Amino acid sequence: MQFASDNWSGASPKVIDALAEAARAGGPAYGGDKITKLVERRFSEIFERDVAVFLVASGTFANALGISAYARAGGLVFCHRDAHIQVDEAGATEFFGGLKIVTLDAAQGKLAPATVREGLARHPEGQLHGGQPVLVSVTQMTELGAAYRPEEVAAIGEAAKSRGCALHMDGARFANAIAALGASPAEVTWRAGVDVLSFGGTKNGCVAAEAVVFFNPAHARDVGFVRQRAGQGFSKNWFIAAQLAAYLDQDHWLDLARKANAMGARLAKALERSADARLAFKPDGNEVFAILTREADARLKAAAAIYHPWSVECLRVSERPKAGEIFVRLVTNWKTAEGDVDRFAKHLRSR
Amino acid sequence: MQFASDNWSGASPKVIDALAEAARAGGPAYGGDKITKLVERRFSEIFERDVAVFLVASGTFANALGISAYARAGGLVFCHRDAHIQVDEAGATEFFGGLKIVTLDAAQGKLAPATVREGLARHPEGQLHGGQPVLVSVTQMTELGAAYRPEEVAAIGEAAKSRGCALHMDGARFANAIAALGASPAEVTWRAGVDVLSFGGTKNGCVAAEAVVFFNPAHARDVGFVRQRAGQGFSKNWFIAAQLAAYLDQDHWLDLARKANAMGARLAKALERSADARLAFKPDGNEVFAILTREADARLKAAAAIYHPWSVECLRVSERPKAGEIFVRLVTNWKTAEGDVDRFAKHLRSR
Amino acid sequence: MQFASDNWSGASPKVIDALAEAARAGGPAYGGDKITKLVERRFSEIFERDVAVFLVASGTFANALGISAYARAGGLVFCHRDAHIQVDEAGATEFFGGLKIVTLDAAQGKLAPATVREGLARHPEGQLHGGQPVLVSVTQMTELGAAYRPEEVAAIGEAAKSRGCALHMDGARFANAIAALGASPAEVTWRAGVDVLSFGGTKNGCVAAEAVVFFNPAHARDVGFVRQRAGQGFSKNWFIAAQLAAYLDQDHWLDLARKANAMGARLAKALERSADARLAFKPDGNEVFAILTREADARLKAAAAIYHPWSVECLRVSERPKAGEIFVRLVTNWKTAEGDVDRFAKHLRSR
Amino acid sequence: MQFASDNWSGASPKVIDALAEAARAGGPAYGGDKITKLVERRFSEIFERDVAVFLVASGTFANALGISAYARAGGLVFCHRDAHIQVDEAGATEFFGGLKIVTLDAAQGKLAPATVREGLARHPEGQLHGGQPVLVSVTQMTELGAAYRPEEVAAIGEAAKSRGCALHMDGARFANAIAALGASPAEVTWRAGVDVLSFGGTKNGCVAAEAVVFFNPAHARDVGFVRQRAGQGFSKNWFIAAQLAAYLDQDHWLDLARKANAMGARLAKALERSADARLAFKPDGNEVFAILTREADARLKAAAAIYHPWSVECLRVSERPKAGEIFVRLVTNWKTAEGDVDRFAKHLRSR
Repeated sequence: MQFASDNWSGASPKVIDALAEAARAGGPAYGGDKITKLVERRFSEIFERDVAVFLVASGTFANALGISAYARAGGLVFCHRDAHIQVDEAGATEFFGGLKIVTLDAAQGKLAPATVREGLARHPEGQLHGGQPVLVSVTQMTELGAAYRPEEVAAIGEAAKSRGCALHMDGARFANAIAALGASPAEVTWRAGVDVLSFGGTKNGCVAAEAVVFFNPAHARDVGFVRQRAGQGFSKNWFIAAQLAAYLDQDHWLDLARKANAMGARLAKALERSADARLAFKPDGNEVFAILTREADARLKAAAAIYHPWSVECLRVSERPKAGEIFVRLVTNWKTAEGDVDRFAKHLRSR
Repeated sequence: MQFASDNWSGASPKVIDALAEAARAGGPAYGGDKITKLVERRFSEIFERDVAVFLVASGTFANALGISAYARAGGLVFCHRDAHIQVDEAGATEFFGGLKIVTLDAAQGKLAPATVREGLARHPEGQLHGGQPVLVSVTQMTELGAAYRPEEVAAIGEAAKSRGCALHMDGARFANAIAALGASPAEVTWRAGVDVLSFGGTKNGCVAAEAVVFFNPAHARDVGFVRQRAGQGFSKNWFIAAQLAAYLDQDHWLDLARKANAMGARLAKALERSADARLAFKPDGNEVFAILTREADARLKAAAAIYHPWSVECLRVSERPKAGEIFVRLVTNWKTAEGDVDRFAKHLRSR
Repeated sequence: MQFASDNWSGASPKVIDALAEAARAGGPAYGGDKITKLVERRFSEIFERDVAVFLVASGTFANALGISAYARAGGLVFCHRDAHIQVDEAGATEFFGGLKIVTLDAAQGKLAPATVREGLARHPEGQLHGGQPVLVSVTQMTELGAAYRPEEVAAIGEAAKSRGCALHMDGARFANAIAALGASPAEVTWRAGVDVLSFGGTKNGCVAAEAVVFFNPAHARDVGFVRQRAGQGFSKNWFIAAQLAAYLDQDHWLDLARKANAMGARLAKALERSADARLAFKPDGNEVFAILTREADARLKAAAAIYHPWSVECLRVSERPKAGEIFVRLVTNWKTAEGDVDRFAKHLRSR
Repeated sequence: MQFASDNWSGASPKVIDALAEAARAGGPAYGGDKITKLVERRFSEIFERDVAVFLVASGTFANALGISAYARAGGLVFCHRDAHIQVDEAGATEFFGGLKIVTLDAAQGKLAPATVREGLARHPEGQLHGGQPVLVSVTQMTELGAAYRPEEVAAIGEAAKSRGCALHMDGARFANAIAALGASPAEVTWRAGVDVLSFGGTKNGCVAAEAVVFFNPAHARDVGFVRQRAGQGFSKNWFIAAQLAAYLDQDHWLDLARKANAMGARLAKALERSADARLAFKPDGNEVFAILTREADARLKAAAAIYHPWSVECLRVSERPKAGEIFVRLVTNWKTAEGDVDRFAKHLRSR
């Protein structure tokens, strides 16, 4: 009963086999190998246009690298106050881009276009003291488990573009979002105004593999230098490429995400039915946020369930846990078994 | 006949198997797993003292991370003008530490203590305009194939310490050096004044695995933040740990290096015997620098030998190739077969 | 009737004369001159202890320089959300220190110890993802016109120290605060736990002169390099020293501040008496925040009064201007004449 | 007999009076004043085209600011190994631009086009490890007292442009160069390919006043933010503007420089005539480099002459001082009296 995070799950056998095979073969260094080329082509197919792709080994660096391409002096990056780039990356966006983050608020981590416009309006053009807006970042799915629909992304994209800002999408759980939305990768990204995407693999069955996808390759002209200088221009670049080649092959990435999402839905249903719990948000994918009775929490912990308490500041004041309650995050993944979910459910009292 | 670089060689089967096994198992994120703990202990055994270890995925970042722990405002780093940190890391040392590199000259990439002292003396204390010396970096083995003996390291260490500088060792080919010297890891590092070591795995049989080893753990108090901010604090940290666990197990790392060095020696001998070539330096390990006749070069290329021409600025003027000659680097590795070396030799005319 | 800012006022004649005299004389470069030495001694007298002093030409850089001395990787700086370092310095704190700012809320720009403790508690020790608290910054007087009493500073100092953080004071209007509080410079700084102070001169009668005062000189060992690298280690350092020598001579700085504060009080009284206005806060010094009727605003503008509208987000929702009202900031200074204030008052309707 | 540096000389009375007058008047903050506007126009006249001008308070920051506008990730700046940006600015170029400096060698600090081309060629396009050339910097007059003629600048400009690099001119002694060359400011800058100039005032009669002049204003779009973030976007911007207004008025800057240069020539002549000295280079302006007998040096010091010994590494090996000799730099300035030079000469033995 491991619901701590989708990054505890090891890697998918198909990905492992591909990685091992590439490691046995070896090949030219620094991306001169065939698998890297193949993966680059594959991304252009998946996104239905020519893209510039940079393979990296972590989501934090994927975000920092993508955002850095839009950095300018005094640059401001707008994102949700619970965004991974703001709370979980130890200042990577600021460090790599020389940028400053401005946070916005919204329910379930999902920015609203009006909030973005208001935030940007507080930094009028030519105001040197406060800095200049350069980029808006959204997380797909959000850190609180919601997927942006294409038209929602597009509206934020328009708000960003109205002030000359780029739109960045942190897609650490992009696969889960695509699986949930039934929209195409193109529809929720460049067709909706996204300039650069962190396409995640690690949380959904890879070992350490992320791709930074630029929908306008011209924007990426200096990105190779940023990656090299950061020590993520790997000599054995095929180690990431091999993982992604397997991950993208025959929609393996979507199969894995569908499985994770199905387990998330199963878990959410179990919580909804219980007298011990209520959902904090309706989950779109594999992240389930719930308020449990402390009693149920103790029962589950005793039964060796693993999950994390979460910050109540993500909730409106009226929705926060009351005395005797606790707010928790439960994450399913491609490896979660139905049996795990059902065993978890068995420890909850029914309504 | 691949002598292009030791990073073209894929990974050792033992390392691959360990990585695959860890990936099947999964585990707690961000270094909370058992393999990471095991590897940390292993390094303390190998170096015969308590060390602080940070696992990272590339040599460039290993260097930048280790050096950054000694960064101070206006800080100057002294190294050989052909050092990897100076010519091959796209400014990583400068970027992560806010530092400036001062280069020194010496034969075969190997700094002499007197040169280090002179370089430091050009930056007297309290001179604000020129910056303050903070660190001296040596590469073991050097970029031109020489291994520093313990007493050579110690003399440089003393020069560094005389000005309050730390001593960093770029050990991308540390295994080759240890195999060549027959000295213990402790003797060529902390016992000789080294404060921090980039312990390389990638060039010698790993996929992507390096360890930054601090011999005084107190120096490392902020290093975790630098690594996290750089996106090399990996969620699946076991992917590096598993490689290194296998790499360090039962001296596998030294076995691989001995093999590579033996092939280097075999290759050097073949070149020495030939009328087509002369060695530029006496190689200590797996990097062989030679001056070939252009004719032999053409013959070898036609036979599909792979290797790189090298910059003649590494050579004294009197030793540079003459008309009809070319300066090249040939690198062997743990996977190089005797047959490969012998086939190479067959294309050289004997003296 | 200029109430736009205290930096529109030119410089005090005494300061101008001293600057001109020093410029006629010249002297050794880079702080080797006598006036610089004299000013350094003067600061030790004023603060009743040995201090390390760095003269700089702007308040933005004074803050960035002082804070940078406490920078560590992943470092977090805590301050009020309206603090100058957060909203008006184009990211200088982040840029010079590689830091990230975390904002806190409080009335009239004045942090409360409990808020500081809560903010720090959200970043527990050893949590690499979120960064590590390194410094708390307060502004004396605050950006909204309030002076911290010594015991208020001390309580924040204790909160900061409980987590190993330094305490920085942005004293752009330090003179106004000292004049208002009747406390000694030592009492509101190091005796209350302040580690480093930006001692402002520019807003209170200098041309361009600020001093960064470290109460523990050992903290300042690398600061000279940061200043030099930023291009504020001036060859003609006496140009700042001469201003400050005159400014500090015979309490000239306090005389100027008392004058500015008295004009602030006179202006506040006029506003309080008027049917056209209400004070947003009780001013402690020379910054007066008021809500005016739009009618009065138009009348004053027609009479050539100069002042700025201010962001209503500084006010609690219940206190914000209603329809037909506007929120404004009025700043007096050492040069403001009583007649100016009285003419301003004449344009307001009495209650 | 002060020949230590041109920055020991205080300021010209005309500059002092203008500064004092502006300080008495005050005015709108952050460059909103009339003098700033006037100076900006004046620069467009002097350079015979529309330029974008940024006033700053030091030469170090002027260089860093101008260069930063051309910064790109992995960017390399090429300059003479004795260039001020390399040896005297504590890493400002690296810090503000995230750049790396590559040094070139040449006699009397004056780069040759062929050397520039060779240096650039060592960093071929698309080579990620070594970084990408972005800018070439020349110093006018050089740190060793030579002025570049327009055609010399143009040839370097062509070399730079052939690789897409910008051309920066450090004009700390630009006035001395113009006075020496008899060429127009336009001829030695943009007409010869210069993109950005640090126009110096401080060494030639100002207190602290430099201007960064962009010949293509479009290049400067983010420069205001860099300046603000560095704390050199001064609230009382008129304090620099007033100095420069006087400095540029009626060719005052050239009159001052002509005076300094004339004194340099007088001093050089005296040295040439002496049996105690030989000139290291033929000086073009106000910097005189000479090799003195140690005896003469002692005699001059005893007579209270002030000047600095200089690094012999600036000299070819064959030209370095022999036993009993010393290499020194002597700098004249606008304030140097003929009598000072003649008194100095009196202490030298004639040939």
